[in-house]
Amino acid sequence: MAITSETLNFLTDLLGPDRVSTRQADLDAHAQDESFHAPHPPDVVVWPQNAQEISAILKHANEKHIPVTPWSGGSSLEGNPIPVQGGILLALYRMNQIIEVREADLQVVVQPGIIYDELNQKLARYGLFFPPAPGSSDVATIGGMVANNSSGMHAVKYGVTKDYVLQLEVVLPTGEIVRIGRPVIKSSSGYDLCRLIVGSEGTLGVVTEITLRLRIRPEAVAAVAVFPSMEAAAEAIYAINRYGPTPAALELMDPTIVRIVNQWTGSSLTEAPTLVMEFHGLPAGIEQEIELVEETCRDAGCVSFEKGLTPAERERLWHARKQAHEAVKQVNAGCRAEIGDIVVPISRYTEAVAKAYALAEELNVRIATFGHAGDGNLHVEMLSDKSDPQEQERAHAFNRRLVEWVLSIGGTCTGEHGVGIGKREFMYAEHGPSLELMRKIKQVFDPNGIMNPGKIFPEQ
Amino acid sequence: MAITSETLNFLTDLLGPDRVSTRQADLDAHAQDESFHAPHPPDVVVWPQNAQEISAILKHANEKHIPVTPWSGGSSLEGNPIPVQGGILLALYRMNQIIEVREADLQVVVQPGIIYDELNQKLARYGLFFPPAPGSSDVATIGGMVANNSSGMHAVKYGVTKDYVLQLEVVLPTGEIVRIGRPVIKSSSGYDLCRLIVGSEGTLGVVTEITLRLRIRPEAVAAVAVFPSMEAAAEAIYAINRYGPTPAALELMDPTIVRIVNQWTGSSLTEAPTLVMEFHGLPAGIEQEIELVEETCRDAGCVSFEKGLTPAERERLWHARKQAHEAVKQVNAGCRAEIGDIVVPISRYTEAVAKAYALAEELNVRIATFGHAGDGNLHVEMLSDKSDPQEQERAHAFNRRLVEWVLSIGGTCTGEHGVGIGKREFMYAEHGPSLELMRKIKQVFDPNGIMNPGKIFPEQ
Repeated sequence: MAITSETLNFLTDLLGPDRVSTRQADLDAHAQDESFHAPHPPDVVVWPQNAQEISAILKHANEKHIPVTPWSGGSSLEGNPIPVQGGILLALYRMNQIIEVREADLQVVVQPGIIYDELNQKLARYGLFFPPAPGSSDVATIGGMVANNSSGMHAVKYGVTKDYVLQLEVVLPTGEIVRIGRPVIKSSSGYDLCRLIVGSEGTLGVVTEITLRLRIRPEAVAAVAVFPSMEAAAEAIYAINRYGPTPAALELMDPTIVRIVNQWTGSSLTEAPTLVMEFHGLPAGIEQEIELVEETCRDAGCVSFEKGLTPAERERLWHARKQAHEAVKQVNAGCRAEIGDIVVPISRYTEAVAKAYALAEELNVRIATFGHAGDGNLHVEMLSDKSDPQEQERAHAFNRRLVEWVLSIGGTCTGEHGVGIGKREFMYAEHGPSLELMRKIKQVFDPNGIMNPGKIFPEQ
Repeated sequence: MAITSETLNFLTDLLGPDRVSTRQADLDAHAQDESFHAPHPPDVVVWPQNAQEISAILKHANEKHIPVTPWSGGSSLEGNPIPVQGGILLALYRMNQIIEVREADLQVVVQPGIIYDELNQKLARYGLFFPPAPGSSDVATIGGMVANNSSGMHAVKYGVTKDYVLQLEVVLPTGEIVRIGRPVIKSSSGYDLCRLIVGSEGTLGVVTEITLRLRIRPEAVAAVAVFPSMEAAAEAIYAINRYGPTPAALELMDPTIVRIVNQWTGSSLTEAPTLVMEFHGLPAGIEQEIELVEETCRDAGCVSFEKGLTPAERERLWHARKQAHEAVKQVNAGCRAEIGDIVVPISRYTEAVAKAYALAEELNVRIATFGHAGDGNLHVEMLSDKSDPQEQERAHAFNRRLVEWVLSIGGTCTGEHGVGIGKREFMYAEHGPSLELMRKIKQVFDPNGIMNPGKIFPEQ
């Protein structure tokens, strides 16, 4: 749809000409996230500064049935903020302030545009941190993490974004500004609207303020175990998950990913199945944890177990791991890199890796795998030549087959990237009739369907 | 309302005469929970055995607009399962089986009627446990814990019930049986219906099967610190919460509660402000944690810090702590014991205790306090003579004043007992306009309002 001049005038009157744009460059800059999905430009980009402005915009859009898509950072991986129906793009990345650090309560109140690493840098001075640790921590915004219920490397010990969101200020499509949740650690007071909004990908309203629970920043030590085979790595992963101790990170990289990461980051990791781990706690506890995990890895036949890394080595190691997806994209220029985000029950984790490789061979698809072995979350990178539609089709068929298998063993199609555009096709298979309850809840919040349309729900 | 003979015939045809009762003794046995709220009998009690039977009952009730109240154990503290509008009482405590232990996935699938302690006894053989640890663990059912989002002594380290519920089978008022959530550790796939149902107190549907995530059973050591004043205890609580290490339990008992508990259980705890703590982990880690916490308590001026308890001593200690509410009731026979369940931001915890005592003096109310100091959850026991309506009225006024203060500083009226009957009056003050969203969600699930009517929502 096209925006009318009435709407453009309304927006310009509200925000001033500098915060409303229909310039092609601005539309293009907000037409695609970090995914492979086809770009689609909005009709207009606006940069609101506060909830009141957003309220006025939503009220207008709701009356006129104009699509509104919130965009906090644009680093999502499933097309989540692509304005597939045009309309108004709400750019939130300038709303990036820390409103209040409640040091004594271990809480922080932030705007949605603040970036994860920047927030944690600020919190470090208080000895506090917000734990989930997405791989894209240098660009991921807290607003985006709330939208997608993001997590990452520390989820195995600390949980995911939704476990830390205590209170939200949300602008509803009617323009009403509501506060949901309470800034306390626990509550049994009515329905948990906060955790309903977290992970709803901007389809229920616009989050304008977030109160997070924080954790005390612990001592941290890293370790790397290299295995002769995926089977050996699998044995170690199983034993660590089943008998503990639970590390603060337990990341698997397959030999292909290690090679790609080495090539892109200049690291010299052994190109073999690798577990990258981190341990948090008091020194004596960490030491004993590492001892036990080393024993487990050696029992499983690991080739090497490196501990006692210096802080600089630890930082380089995690940098290498975090660059995995970027490395896949950069090393394979000319290729489309589609990233999967399945989660399986933890006992099936390495079976999922094997299944992926077997399917890839069957369907002639190039893949590489890595992921959060501690919570069953596996990312399969599917490569296809940008100029080869048949290979792209094979990659897509591979993904569909893999997800169908994942769902058949109780898994989920997305652990941390959200549904966005690409996972909509799996929603009925995953949720069955309860998907209808989700649709009805969507209607409660957004009867005119203006909020980020074309996401989460499959076409009916 | 009275149940018609048509409905009685329907129920008897469905369940057989042995599982349908209108005998007064059965009605009375399901007219009141462990709270002080006025009893109200159902019109009929039924004991279904599976989701299919419950589906048929709900479908009938929904067509006829008959109230249905699920009852899993009856140990709740806020009138949550009292059938205030009569109708059908769904007794679920015979649906108490472990359906499947998924040892390798650290999951268990249970029916709602199983009791917390019994479940954990079974899980101990696998080295696993479900952590929340309500004080009433010997009678609390998992179904009731899901209904109220219960927690307890281990919430400070491990979180609350909702953090462990992965998947639910729910019978909707239409009779439709839906499965919500997925049996994996994390997911970003659509709206989180699971955490919407947890804590909804049977107002959205009937939970018939619960898949829980479990934790690895750790080494556990207890410690007790006694303080010369509440101020000194406050200082220790603040420092432990702010700087760690985080214990697996951090329980405050005031001198009045200690005296009452001693009297009822035959313990000989020092009748002074007391912190009862537990530490979980590997031995070396626990040892260092206790050392640091002891230092913190001594810096705050504790009179004694007892560690190195034998397993038998540890068990007696926790038994004493868990008996707190029962002790209050038993020692004060002839009194009504109303128990509060406020949560405040953790830095305000001991201020909340002081506020309670100041208010009690002002309003001439007898109180005693204990609670989960690690997550800001305080239980205030309010005593009033059963034959003294004026004292009861003063206790009620006290509670209202205290909750109003709690809400004014960002707290919640209930941390783990649920809203039930008694907290309904605070719901608008706590949630504001977002309460309307809760009402609309209720209508999505239960358009005829048959599910546990008269709970959570204030009269309009």
